[in-house]
Amino acid sequence: MSEKPQASALLKEDATALAARLRSGDLTSEQLTAATLAAIDEQDGSINAYNFVDAEAAMEASRASDARRREGRPLSEFDGLTVAVKDNIDVAGMPTSSGLGYKERAPVADTDASVVTQLRAAGLIIIGKLNMHEIALGATNDNPHWGRCENPLRAGYTPGGSSGGSGAAVAAGICAFALGTDTMGSVRIPASYCGVAGVKPGRDQIAMPGVTRLCGRLDTVGPLARSSRDLKALWPLICRKQASVPDGNGSRASAALSSIRWGVIDHCEKVGTESEIAETFREFADHLPGADKVRRDFSAMDFSAIRRAGLLWCEAEANITFASELQAQPEIFSAELQRLLRWGADRSAPELVRAMDTVEAAGAWLRNQLEGIDFLLTPTTLQTAFPFSSAAPANQANLTSSVNMAGLAAASIPLGTTAEGLPFGLQIIARAGDEARLLEICVALEQHLCHQGTPATA
Amino acid sequence: MSEKPQASALLKEDATALAARLRSGDLTSEQLTAATLAAIDEQDGSINAYNFVDAEAAMEASRASDARRREGRPLSEFDGLTVAVKDNIDVAGMPTSSGLGYKERAPVADTDASVVTQLRAAGLIIIGKLNMHEIALGATNDNPHWGRCENPLRAGYTPGGSSGGSGAAVAAGICAFALGTDTMGSVRIPASYCGVAGVKPGRDQIAMPGVTRLCGRLDTVGPLARSSRDLKALWPLICRKQASVPDGNGSRASAALSSIRWGVIDHCEKVGTESEIAETFREFADHLPGADKVRRDFSAMDFSAIRRAGLLWCEAEANITFASELQAQPEIFSAELQRLLRWGADRSAPELVRAMDTVEAAGAWLRNQLEGIDFLLTPTTLQTAFPFSSAAPANQANLTSSVNMAGLAAASIPLGTTAEGLPFGLQIIARAGDEARLLEICVALEQHLCHQGTPATA
Repeated sequence: MSEKPQASALLKEDATALAARLRSGDLTSEQLTAATLAAIDEQDGSINAYNFVDAEAAMEASRASDARRREGRPLSEFDGLTVAVKDNIDVAGMPTSSGLGYKERAPVADTDASVVTQLRAAGLIIIGKLNMHEIALGATNDNPHWGRCENPLRAGYTPGGSSGGSGAAVAAGICAFALGTDTMGSVRIPASYCGVAGVKPGRDQIAMPGVTRLCGRLDTVGPLARSSRDLKALWPLICRKQASVPDGNGSRASAALSSIRWGVIDHCEKVGTESEIAETFREFADHLPGADKVRRDFSAMDFSAIRRAGLLWCEAEANITFASELQAQPEIFSAELQRLLRWGADRSAPELVRAMDTVEAAGAWLRNQLEGIDFLLTPTTLQTAFPFSSAAPANQANLTSSVNMAGLAAASIPLGTTAEGLPFGLQIIARAGDEARLLEICVALEQHLCHQGTPATA
Repeated sequence: MSEKPQASALLKEDATALAARLRSGDLTSEQLTAATLAAIDEQDGSINAYNFVDAEAAMEASRASDARRREGRPLSEFDGLTVAVKDNIDVAGMPTSSGLGYKERAPVADTDASVVTQLRAAGLIIIGKLNMHEIALGATNDNPHWGRCENPLRAGYTPGGSSGGSGAAVAAGICAFALGTDTMGSVRIPASYCGVAGVKPGRDQIAMPGVTRLCGRLDTVGPLARSSRDLKALWPLICRKQASVPDGNGSRASAALSSIRWGVIDHCEKVGTESEIAETFREFADHLPGADKVRRDFSAMDFSAIRRAGLLWCEAEANITFASELQAQPEIFSAELQRLLRWGADRSAPELVRAMDTVEAAGAWLRNQLEGIDFLLTPTTLQTAFPFSSAAPANQANLTSSVNMAGLAAASIPLGTTAEGLPFGLQIIARAGDEARLLEICVALEQHLCHQGTPATA
């Protein structure tokens, strides 16, 4: 049996390691949950990742999990680990704010979102709800109602967004897993900025009932964790069961990196990637095993048109999703968000058609880039986390949003850290339905990055 | 060798029978094409199915086909048969009017639509372009620029639409096959009214490049023919090659009708089916072989909301598809169509979102009805063809449009004729990707209907 680690070190172990402790009897779920709740008490005043914590229910669930383990019938390998859920995903008995400023308390969900039902069925303990960018429309998590969520790696810096609370909580070790949502990059951007792993599955691969809609065509739920092996093991527990056949000509990849047909973004600095990230990415790509490495040129993409189109769609659709709130209690929306939604409301139906056409064309372009290859690699973000005091760059989602538009899957795993000590991610794009293989590949890439000496976590 | 039939009787044989004559040497493509062109000359003055005929190119193509056959290398079993194409599908060298009133001639296509390329590769002879409802937005084919297309079964009556020319030309025997397009029912409605067979494939099962868009999410190309066996044999020649895996839990049907899990619309008169059609449908359903027959209740569908939503989407999208024409030459649109398009232009982006939500919900509802069954049966239309002198009923597409919204496939085959002598269709709804099996089932149903004494063709 291993020596007892300090609580803070213990909580930063990945879910797979924590699950091994539970299995070996080294640790009980009750101990782990109590330590997690204590860490939330201690640290979350400054991080502000949680909007809501149900400590009592979590402790009770942890004891039930321990009882199952004692009886030799855990519900899954992760039975007894904690998971926290972005505040736009319903958890029965907890409020769902979607990041809005409800005056009293946000409406309490009667039932779990489908994916939360799946988590419970696997014995995971739903510990609370996580801070997010207001209605998920933005990537800084500078939430005017709930307060800024801070990047646990650097005070005063954004954790990214919109699933900023999810990235921050996982990085800080105050949950084993988190669920986020990703419409244009909202799981992968915080994964990149917080130095953790996250995956946005392909369209329809995780059930969406119980998730607040931003743009139904682009929305996906995605988990964040401290390692790729965690995501790989979690995937079968949360995906839709019928989701399995890859779209189009399936990937023939095995987990052996050398057998993969890689696509690699060509000269990523040409699309605005900061030089340190571009340099690390180039180094990484040059030393990546694999016979075929096909360069893909992204420089013809009109990123600003694609961004405007995606945002317009979100802004128009949010007028319908939040129609009753906008009518009855507009003050729960920030002035800035009201402005964005009014912009969406004032556009014409043909303008929306044009935006959807732009979105569809961007998606089709990216799907074409996967022709003849198994996985396509880019940096996740063009930059690292930035201070709240500086303006959010407009291009944060440039390399992520077209994945949603294409309906494809993509993971972000830590690729390196800058001299300043801030992490950034590697994005691995795959076909919808090929998530299990994508996550196997992420595990292999993470190992490869470790051995290459490029630090895989901050 | 069979006795030479009269030209008019010959031309009403189905494509499979005509192909057998070509194969046996009983007939050459040159003879058949010449007879078809003569029939067009003779009959189409009153039917008005054709907007454009290229007799010279057709004759030349027929001689090339005959040469291939003599050399023992026909391109397909249908090499040398004629096909006519709805006037919103590009044929290189022919104008594409989409039913609009271009002052001189409609723009001539440089290249074939993808599906036309496939037809040519199979040796089919593209004889001309077919009349249609203006921009495919309507189901009477009372075209103000090109003139009414008449139902060949009854002068002064609509052939249905928007692919009215396609239904009329096939029924009249002035082509072997026709291509139509179907956004809310535009292949199946003319099939029903003209007493022929037509199929609307599932979403993405036939390639769309070169087809004028009405509503990209709902549009499909679909063939019409004089028999189901024709459609079954044509299908592999025109489908996208990768299109093969049925969506969702695949049908386990074989062509043996008794092994099918049928879904049948419950009490179709409750949704407005005219009594003679409802009576014939009930008779048919009661005597249909098959162990499982599950009733599906359509009466909760809000057909008028669904229709308005589908039309609004089309009207908004058409503003983008025809943006330059609306700007530069509005006079090529009828006043009525200009009014519809202005309505679409004046709607807001959130109104379009709401309409798309209604469309999506109708589609999801219909997909759910396929749970646990192989094929779902309804009448194709609630009524038979009606005279141009009476107002078009608003509910013509009530039983067809949700199939497009669901992305499913559906065929229409002749089910019977009223005492007045007008035909009506049986709609068979299937999963996307299951078209080959659907058409096998149509062949079996057509045989079954023949043996039941319910007339299968008018």
